[in-house]
Parts: sequence; C-alpha cells; structure tokens
Amino acid sequence: MKKILVISPITTVHFSGMTKEYLEGIRSPGTEVEYVNIKKGPASIETFYDEAYALPEILRIVDEYNTKCDAIMINCFADPAVNAARELADIPVVGPAEASMALALMLGHKFAVISTLRNSGPWIELQARTYGIENRMAAAIGIDIPVLELKTDLKKTAAYLIDAAKELIESKGAEVIVLGCTGMAPVADMIRKELNVPVVEPMAAAFKMAEMMADLRLKHSKIGLYMTPDKGKISGY
Amino acid sequence: MKKILVISPITTVHFSGMTKEYLEGIRSPGTEVEYVNIKKGPASIETFYDEAYALPEILRIVDEYNTKCDAIMINCFADPAVNAARELADIPVVGPAEASMALALMLGHKFAVISTLRNSGPWIELQARTYGIENRMAAAIGIDIPVLELKTDLKKTAAYLIDAAKELIESKGAEVIVLGCTGMAPVADMIRKELNVPVVEPMAAAFKMAEMMADLRLKHSKIGLYMTPDKGKISGY
Amino acid sequence: MKKILVISPITTVHFSGMTKEYLEGIRSPGTEVEYVNIKKGPASIETFYDEAYALPEILRIVDEYNTKCDAIMINCFADPAVNAARELADIPVVGPAEASMALALMLGHKFAVISTLRNSGPWIELQARTYGIENRMAAAIGIDIPVLELKTDLKKTAAYLIDAAKELIESKGAEVIVLGCTGMAPVADMIRKELNVPVVEPMAAAFKMAEMMADLRLKHSKIGLYMTPDKGKISGY
Amino acid sequence: MKKILVISPITTVHFSGMTKEYLEGIRSPGTEVEYVNIKKGPASIETFYDEAYALPEILRIVDEYNTKCDAIMINCFADPAVNAARELADIPVVGPAEASMALALMLGHKFAVISTLRNSGPWIELQARTYGIENRMAAAIGIDIPVLELKTDLKKTAAYLIDAAKELIESKGAEVIVLGCTGMAPVADMIRKELNVPVVEPMAAAFKMAEMMADLRLKHSKIGLYMTPDKGKISGY
Amino acid sequence: MKKILVISPITTVHFSGMTKEYLEGIRSPGTEVEYVNIKKGPASIETFYDEAYALPEILRIVDEYNTKCDAIMINCFADPAVNAARELADIPVVGPAEASMALALMLGHKFAVISTLRNSGPWIELQARTYGIENRMAAAIGIDIPVLELKTDLKKTAAYLIDAAKELIESKGAEVIVLGCTGMAPVADMIRKELNVPVVEPMAAAFKMAEMMADLRLKHSKIGLYMTPDKGKISGY
Amino acid sequence: MKKILVISPITTVHFSGMTKEYLEGIRSPGTEVEYVNIKKGPASIETFYDEAYALPEILRIVDEYNTKCDAIMINCFADPAVNAARELADIPVVGPAEASMALALMLGHKFAVISTLRNSGPWIELQARTYGIENRMAAAIGIDIPVLELKTDLKKTAAYLIDAAKELIESKGAEVIVLGCTGMAPVADMIRKELNVPVVEPMAAAFKMAEMMADLRLKHSKIGLYMTPDKGKISGY
Repeated sequence: MKKILVISPITTVHFSGMTKEYLEGIRSPGTEVEYVNIKKGPASIETFYDEAYALPEILRIVDEYNTKCDAIMINCFADPAVNAARELADIPVVGPAEASMALALMLGHKFAVISTLRNSGPWIELQARTYGIENRMAAAIGIDIPVLELKTDLKKTAAYLIDAAKELIESKGAEVIVLGCTGMAPVADMIRKELNVPVVEPMAAAFKMAEMMADLRLKHSKIGLYMTPDKGKISGY
Repeated sequence: MKKILVISPITTVHFSGMTKEYLEGIRSPGTEVEYVNIKKGPASIETFYDEAYALPEILRIVDEYNTKCDAIMINCFADPAVNAARELADIPVVGPAEASMALALMLGHKFAVISTLRNSGPWIELQARTYGIENRMAAAIGIDIPVLELKTDLKKTAAYLIDAAKELIESKGAEVIVLGCTGMAPVADMIRKELNVPVVEPMAAAFKMAEMMADLRLKHSKIGLYMTPDKGKISGY
Repeated sequence: MKKILVISPITTVHFSGMTKEYLEGIRSPGTEVEYVNIKKGPASIETFYDEAYALPEILRIVDEYNTKCDAIMINCFADPAVNAARELADIPVVGPAEASMALALMLGHKFAVISTLRNSGPWIELQARTYGIENRMAAAIGIDIPVLELKTDLKKTAAYLIDAAKELIESKGAEVIVLGCTGMAPVADMIRKELNVPVVEPMAAAFKMAEMMADLRLKHSKIGLYMTPDKGKISGY
Repeated sequence: MKKILVISPITTVHFSGMTKEYLEGIRSPGTEVEYVNIKKGPASIETFYDEAYALPEILRIVDEYNTKCDAIMINCFADPAVNAARELADIPVVGPAEASMALALMLGHKFAVISTLRNSGPWIELQARTYGIENRMAAAIGIDIPVLELKTDLKKTAAYLIDAAKELIESKGAEVIVLGCTGMAPVADMIRKELNVPVVEPMAAAFKMAEMMADLRLKHSKIGLYMTPDKGKISGY
Repeated sequence: MKKILVISPITTVHFSGMTKEYLEGIRSPGTEVEYVNIKKGPASIETFYDEAYALPEILRIVDEYNTKCDAIMINCFADPAVNAARELADIPVVGPAEASMALALMLGHKFAVISTLRNSGPWIELQARTYGIENRMAAAIGIDIPVLELKTDLKKTAAYLIDAAKELIESKGAEVIVLGCTGMAPVADMIRKELNVPVVEPMAAAFKMAEMMADLRLKHSKIGLYMTPDKGKISGY
Repeated sequence: MKKILVISPITTVHFSGMTKEYLEGIRSPGTEVEYVNIKKGPASIETFYDEAYALPEILRIVDEYNTKCDAIMINCFADPAVNAARELADIPVVGPAEASMALALMLGHKFAVISTLRNSGPWIELQARTYGIENRMAAAIGIDIPVLELKTDLKKTAAYLIDAAKELIESKGAEVIVLGCTGMAPVADMIRKELNVPVVEPMAAAFKMAEMMADLRLKHSKIGLYMTPDKGKISGY
C-alpha cells in the first residue's frame, strides 16, 4: 500500500468532486489517495501573481504530510511550488506540466500543449525551456476560457480544445496533444474520440508518475538544485 | 489485468533468470509479464553493428505479440527497434534509455549515465541529443566492462559504477545517476547504498513506464514520425 | 527626476545600510531611490522554499508603490517575484540576475557566476536556461558562504570569490565574472583589483538597468507571458 | 584511381539503371564505381521498419567490399546502417542525408528538405537534430509520393517538388532546397530550372563527399562513438 | 561628466542632424556626445559587402578617440566592427543590435526585429544566433525599404513598420518589437502609439547602454575572445 | 577543366610556396589553381582587427576573378570576407573553418579545433555557434604559437599540436581533430602519425569542398542572407 497526497493549490473547491472521482478511476489497486485543498491563496492559478499567493499554503501542506504519505502531486499545470516542495519533502513531488511533458516525449516526435487563457501559451513555452525540452514542443496556446469556466459548458470546452488541437496538428506539426490544465480532465475522453493522436491528460499523468516514483522508491536529488531549507528562517507565516 | 511483453534483444539467455525475478519484484499486482528472447542476432548489444542484427527478430516478436499484450518493453539501453516497433504495434513500446532519461528529468537538475564499454558514452550522448534532452545530461561514460561480464563479479561491477558515479557527481555536476545497461539491475541496490543521489535503474524505469502507458491507454502517435509499415515490402525474411 | 523603488525581499535589515550607501554612489543625478524591506518572509533567500515565502510581501509592496515610482528593482539574485511583479506593475521591474547576465552578454564571450551556497550553482544554471542564454554561461558555482555571513569577514568573502573566479577563468573559459548575490556588492571592488576580467556586480547592474528603462519609458509587454492579474482572486492575504 | 562502392539498400532494382548513369555523369575522372543491390530486405525504405530489414544485408556487403574499395556510399536518404558500417569498415562511409545537409550548411542561411511520404518530414527533422544541425533547417516535409512511384511520372514528381519548394521558400525562410530521397535525382535539373535557389541532390552530394574523403584519406574516428564490432557475436545470419 | 563617441559608419550624412537631435533628447545630464562620420566606405550598410568597406574607417576613428572618451557607440544595427573595436579600445564599445536585443530580453517572452531590406531578416537571425539568444527571437524580417529611403516618407515607413509589427505579434508570438535599423529612430514614437507592446529603438538602447557601461566603469574582457591587436601588422592603410 | 581561385588574405608571402606545393598535391586532375595574395592589409589574421583590414582587398580580388574561375577558396581559418564574397560572386566561395567543420561532422561524434593564439579558442567557438554546430564541437583552443611562427620550427609546432590533441581527446571527448589554421598544413601528416583519430587539415578540406561545389555546379542562395551588393555605394576605395 502507498499513499499519494494530491494538493489542490487553489481555494475554490470547484474541482474537488471531479478530481476525487477521476483519480479513483485511475489509481492502482494498492494506492490510497489523500486530497487537500489550500485554504488561503488564489481562487485559480492563471498568472504568476496567482501562483505566488499559492506557495506558502502548498508548502505548509507539504510539510504537514511529508512523513504521512509516499508521494505528492500538486494538482495544477503551473507546477506551483514543485521546486520548493522537493527541497522540503523527503518523498517525490510531481507536477502535472513536467510529468505530462515527460510522458509526451515518448509518444511522438513533437507535442503541443493547449491551455486556458492567452498568456498560458508563452508561460508553457517558458516551462518547456526551463525543463530543457523546448525543441520537442511544437507549440503552446490558450483557448481563452478561464480555469473556473472550463466546467461551465463541457461541450464548449471540448469543442474549443478539439478545434485548437486540429489546428496545431495541421499547421504546427504536433503529433501529441497535452492538455494544459488539470481542470480539463473531464473532457479528455471527449477530445480523444475526435482526434487521431494521443492526448495526455496531465492530472492522470502526474498521478501515475507519482505512483511510479513511490513504487520505485525514487526521491529527488538533494545535492544540487534542491537543498533542504531551514524553516526557521521564515517569519510572519 | 494487463500483460507487458518484455523482449530481450540478445541471443544469450544470460540475464533471463535475473530479469524475470527482478521484474516479478517490481510488477504491479495487476500486471502479467511475458518474457521472450530473440533466437538469432547478437549475443549482446554493444555496437550499432550488434544492434542492426537484433532488429529483424525484435520486430518479428513485436508482430507476433502485438495483439496479445498491452505494452512492450525492449530490454536494452540501446532502445533497439523502438521506433520501428512503434510503427508496427498498436500498443505502447518503451525503451529503457528513453524511459529512464524521462524519469531522470524529474529527479534533479542534471543526470549522468554510466554504461559499459568506452563507446557507450558518446552513443548515449547521441541518444540524449536525439531525444532532445541533451542539455539536461551532465555526462555519459562507460566503465569498460562488457555487457556479458557485468554479472561475472557483481562486487567489482558495483565498485566500478560507484567510483564512476562519484566522479561524475564531483566533477560534472551530476545530481542523478542513470545506469546505462539493463544488465546492471542486480547491482542497483548496492550502488544506491553508497551514493546520496537517486539512481535510476533502466529496466525498472522502462517496465513501470510500460505499465503506466497501458494503464493510461496511451498509444504512440501515428500521424507523423511513426507510420504503419507495409510488411509485404520485406522479402527474404 | 525619476524614482526607483528598491525592494529588499528579506526580513533582515542586515544589508540595508550598505545598500543605501552603495546605490547613493551609483545613482544618476536625476534619480531618487526609495528603499523598502519586506516585513514577513525569509531572513535570506537561499532556497526555492525561502523564495516562496518572500513573494506575497514583495507583491504587496509592488502594488503599493506601483503608481508612486518609475521603476522597481527587486534586490536579490534569485529575481524573486519578478515575473509576477511585471504582471502587476505598470512600470519596469528589474531583477539582478537577469540584468547582470544581460550586461555580461556584451562584455565577453562567456561569463561565469559565483554565488553563495552549493545549490546556487545549479539554480543559476536553471535561471540562465530559463532566460535562454545558457550557452553563453561558462559555469555557475557557490563559494559555500551563506548570504548572511558574506559581511562577517569581507576579506574572506573576497578571497573566496577571487579564488573561485580564477579557477573559472582558468578551467572553464570564463571571460567575465558575475557576482551571484547582491550582498556581495561591498567586495566587488576588492575583487576587481585582483582579476583582469570585467566583474559585474548585480545590484549596480539591476539598478542602472532600472534607471535606463525608466529613461527610455519602456514597460514590459502585457500581451503574452505577462497578463494583468485579478487581485480579487486572492483570499486570506 | 579510387573505387567507390555504392550500396542500394533496397531489393528493387528499379533505380539501378538511373543511378549508374547518373553517377557516371558526375564521377571524377579517376573514380571507378561499384554498384551493389541488397538481395533481401525492403522493396523501398519509407519507415523505420523498412530500414531495420535493410541493415543486415547492407552490413554483409560492407564487410565483403571493405578491403576492395576506397569509400562507401549507402544510397538512401535514411542513411541506413551508416553508423554500423562506420564501425565495421576501414574506409569512409557516407550517407546522403548527412552529406547533403553538410553541404547545404555552406550554401545559405537555412535549408529545407523535401522528401516522399508524410512521415518523412518528422523523420528528417529527427535526423537533423541527431546530426546537431536542427537550427539550420527551416523545415522538412513530404510530397506524398511513395519512393517507388517517383519515377512513374517524372513531370508530376518535379511539379510537386517545385510547388513544395516554393512554399518552403515563401513561408518558412528556406534559402536552400535539399531533395530528401536519392530517387529524386532524375528530376533535380527540372527543379533547378524553376527555382532561384540552390538545389542539393543527395546522391550526387554523398557520392562526391565519398570521393573527397577517399582523396583526403580520411577515415571515421574509432575511439569514441564508433567501435570495431566483434562479428563473432552474431548468430543466425 | 562622461563623453560618448557615436560613430556613424556610413559616408552619407543623411541621418546626422536627426541623430544629434535625437541623442540630445535622451542623453543623461552628465553626458557629452561626440559625433563622427566615416569619410570613406559605404553610403549605407545593407550587405556584408557594405559592412566590409566600413570597417577600416570605423577602426581608425576608434583608435583616434580611444583615450578621449568614455564609451563608443557604433551607430548601425549591423554592429559593424564591434568585435574589432573592442579589441582595440580600452573603453566599452556598444552595438545597437546587441544592446537592443539584450534590452528586449528583459521586456517580454519573445521579441521580433523589423529591419529594412529582405536580406536583413536572415542577417538578424544570424546575429541572434551568434549572440546566443536565438531562441528568444520570434522572427526577424525586412519591410523592403532601403536604409536611405527610410526618411523619404516617414509616414509610409511608420505604416510599413506598424503593419509588420502587427503581423509578427499576431502570427509569430512576438511580445516585444525591436526596430532593426538606427535610421528608424524618427518614427519610433509614431509606431509606439499604434502598438500595445514595447518598442525598442536601437540607437537609444545602444546609447543608454554605453552610458551605463561608462557609469559602471565596465570594460570588455581581453583574456579570451578579444585580444589587443598589433596595429603594426597592417600595411597599406 | 575547372579553375579554383585561392586567395591568401594576408600580405606576407610567407606561406605561398608551401600552399602552392600542397594544393598541387591534392588538386584533382581536372583542376587548375590560381593563387593570389592581398597586397594591402594584415601580415597575418589573428584578431578581428586584422581581419577587418583584410576585407576590402579580398573583395577586390573576388570581384576581379569572379568571371574567370569556377570557385573561390579564401585561405584563412577566420573565413574572412566569406559572407561578403558570397554576396558579390556568382560562383561558390568556401572558407576553411566552415568547410573543415562540415567535414568533421561526418567523421565522428565530436570534434575539437586546435589553433594558434589564446584568443583563437573562443573565436572558433563563436564560429561554431554562428554556423549552428556548436553542440558538435568538444572544444577549441590555441597552442600559443603566432601564425607567422608556425613554420619557424615545424617539429615544435607539430609537438604542441600533438600534445594539445591528446589532451582534448583524453579530457574533452574529442573524436576528430581539426587544425585551426591553414598555415598548419605542412605538419598535418606529422600529427596524423601520432594520433589515432582523423585529423582534418582545413586548407585541403576547403580546397576539395570548392572543387566539389564547382563539380556539382552549386552556388550560394541569393534570396535570403546573401544579397547582391551595389558596388556603387562604396566610395574612397
């Protein structure tokens, strides 16, 4: 038995039911899932500004659950606090963007990411560069639907994603589509039916990657980029 | 239940017992493993020449098992026939080099690969460039032990790997060590005990990645790099 | 007349006197400097964890001073909150790492960065990759002196930096040295005397770059990566 | 006098007459050409699968002619068996993709490659990345004519290539066109008449490069990537 | 007080009045500007050929003013003689392309450059690659107006630049526009009014960067790429 | 019959006899060689400054011989005036650095370049980046012998080159050695005897590449980077 902590780094509980149900459907038999929402911070993460306000709470939760579970998944494509959490935790920490892009690398020559608002395209390009895999990404774009409205009209969301995917396949050489928001999980299957390419849904990708790391007993390196922080240096929180 | 086919692309059965036992220890409860050796081809894969002679038989096996299992792992760090098998098969095909490097990307800033003979260093550099992740690799080197002698003296093999790893950590900035041959699986734990960095063992990495792809029902894209081949064009085999 | 806001993103006031005096020495005649310390957060920024806890306060200050000054410099080589501040502010926001590396690009073929603790080397490598200039950086290393001890023994700090610089020049092809912490400003001149290469001190580089952006009336693009945030989405702060 | 071995790595003799005649027209006065077809393997190479089945026979021929000639050209843009042949042979081995791209580097800022089927575009992108020259390639595409039909209607083949070239010049910034299949040699001059850019025909490029290497008495390095194989390790062939 | 030498590397005095007036408007209070035109060489620099004939005179002027000023700006986006001048001079030498691209790096995710004739696009791409920042550039194009005709009809020039900028923003992901010719300075403000992105005017960028380098007393490294030349080796000039 | 023009871009005739004799030994039967020295300019090219003063004369010669020969080789590893000459000439123009690096790409995984003075290392790194093949170069260094002293003591020159090559092979992963000065031609064979890797001599590489381009009737693209210059714009020369 292993336990995966899933942190929702937004204050809205909007996606909670869906997330629990979705992960229930994909967890391995021997996996228990713990699901925690941040209580203060952004309603959704759509800017670096939003992300900044999510970090202290994510890290507080990581610290609380560090010894109580086997791996952590931070459930947002911005991969918020992933680096800091890796410093803090003694267990693997997985972010959906990194996990889904790593998976996409193995599924075709070039992948494209489709996310929410206009700014998500350049942001995801920046992530891909930071992860060192920029030249495997065909493109990254947004469909101009805010995170919290993805669920409002699932058919519309799916339709926009399908149209964007077809355009990226046709004109940018995308061979694999990565959904760029974990809030898109409910429409992943609808999209798959309309596309003849693999579609990577990042919540599932990150969750299964967390399971794998726990299974393989792998932990992040602490000799270089990630260094155990001195929690005593923080005041006012 | 899912079934993973593990193809050993060498004619020696040298590693068969170890491989079966090792994968038995890491397979998920719901996974069945089918293990097949090629009958003609190289005794081990240490050169592009060796690899060339392994390909037809690997592909014959892929073709035979394509509809009988859920994912395929080709058990050699050269990732032999992986591209061709992806064209041929309707199920995911995983290579240990690609899988273990993808996993290493998530464990630290830079990884190094330690493999067998002298030529394996540049070969693995070439793999990393081909996979588009060259700038995440700190270095790749060989320890000058041929594949088929890795088992001869496990303590010596482990000692050489530990020395090489320490050197790569010290002087090349490696934060993660990837073992560059699936024949090194038996010494992985011995190495982990002596190093304070994550050690990725590629047979396990590839096997778990194959399980994950089967779980997520992901298949390779067939609209770009991989195109279903016309088997009728081959004569003489 | 223009006013530059300098935000110290650490709770210790350790460097305040030095910073004010130093910037007084380099500001242009027509520049007024406003200096603000965060009141809650990390004592120093040496990990991603530390950085995370600095962000909300930095952004609160940016929001407060946005309409009262002409440019903002966030005085830490981690460039904390720079992206989020650019989203929020209507004026230029400059980070010392980005500014000093941009300047170093024009001074020689390859630059090296010397910072504080061991983990700062890979961190700065990651910054350089994220800024897209990785192949202009010869190396990045730490001298194993914590930020808050840089001032304890300035001669020792200078000596360590000089030794590190000589090694990077000799063995890594560095032609320009960038100091990787704004707390190193007091020893910059001591180092320059011992080295025959340009030494970029990042506080000065960022401050002058902020002046220049204010002079040229340049602001960050808001049509792509940076998008004006909705402050109303944040709760609990 | 020098002798160049030209290996046709396909079982069809479809192009034999054309190839002999074409090379007769471009060989240097002191060059003798030996032309050999594989007897078992693929009818044409259009997938990695096809390529895999060509390798053993190519290598058998390389082994047979190794001491009887001065350089080897493997006459297919997939550069099949080039790495393995370089391990095996004591003489230079040239592949048309590598040779024509190396030549294209000297003719203009960016080159584009036009090949046969849809999958050839990403495949050639992968080649360019593997050869480390990806950022000099403007694009690579296929014209949807199978290799064995290129000769069926030369005017149609030329027309498709001209249209594709014009599009790549106009919209992708291509300054040089590389034909991506040695079977396109017969239409190279027809294309040149219609385009105002250099057109590199890969059979000629590779053949002349083989002559040059023989003239300069250059051989591949055997201390790194290429290692002399142990032929005794192969069984069943 | 500091003195900046501005070298116009073309024989026409076409832009002299404008340049003096423009720089007068942006110079810092403590800056004196010296303005020198070459007397022999090209009427304008639009090809590598033109540039070649500008170099000896630029270097003669650099040699003459080396000890009489504090920094040098060579006023042409081709950055002609910048490397050679850095070897020769004991003071900073700034080129508009390098300076404006360095500045653009800090203003948004990707920048695009718009210059004069058709060939300027690839030329500027080559500059960006040489400066090691190629992956931050969205595109570079020309508007098909020769340098010496930019002033003929300022409204037309501005209109062409605005159209080109809009296209690059819309279809190439440009977030920042860099004008690719210092002769475009007079229309910079007209363009800014029509675009919602930062517009970097290279003469201003280079001039302010020269001021900054003088202020920071930074000089180019002379231990690597730049080596003090032996003037005695030149004959016939 | 074809005629190759070899331009020596230095005023000393130091290497003339050697060059003629050397090229006589490697020219193809059907090739005639025309050899021209510049009359004004640098005694040798060791800095960007030297190079600048070579350009007008090289271009004058290119213009004079443009219609009288079939290809041009500019005989200096700085590849001086190569871009400008390609704009001017209607025939192929080859530079030794570009030609020898293109050839080295085909001979092994990574090449290293050994040139003359200290600054030649970074300069050649810059060339490799500009040519877009930086990641195929293991290293570039100088042996601290000025160009004009290479001939003084051939044994010493050879010994220094051999030592440098061994070091680069041992510690930098170089598999191919490129000599970084055409003045090293006389010692190429001495070096080859002591090294077990291919040694590319750039004068031979460039000369044979020029022959090949003439044979293949290839010319540089004039639609992008290279544009036919307007000679009338130059005054004072």
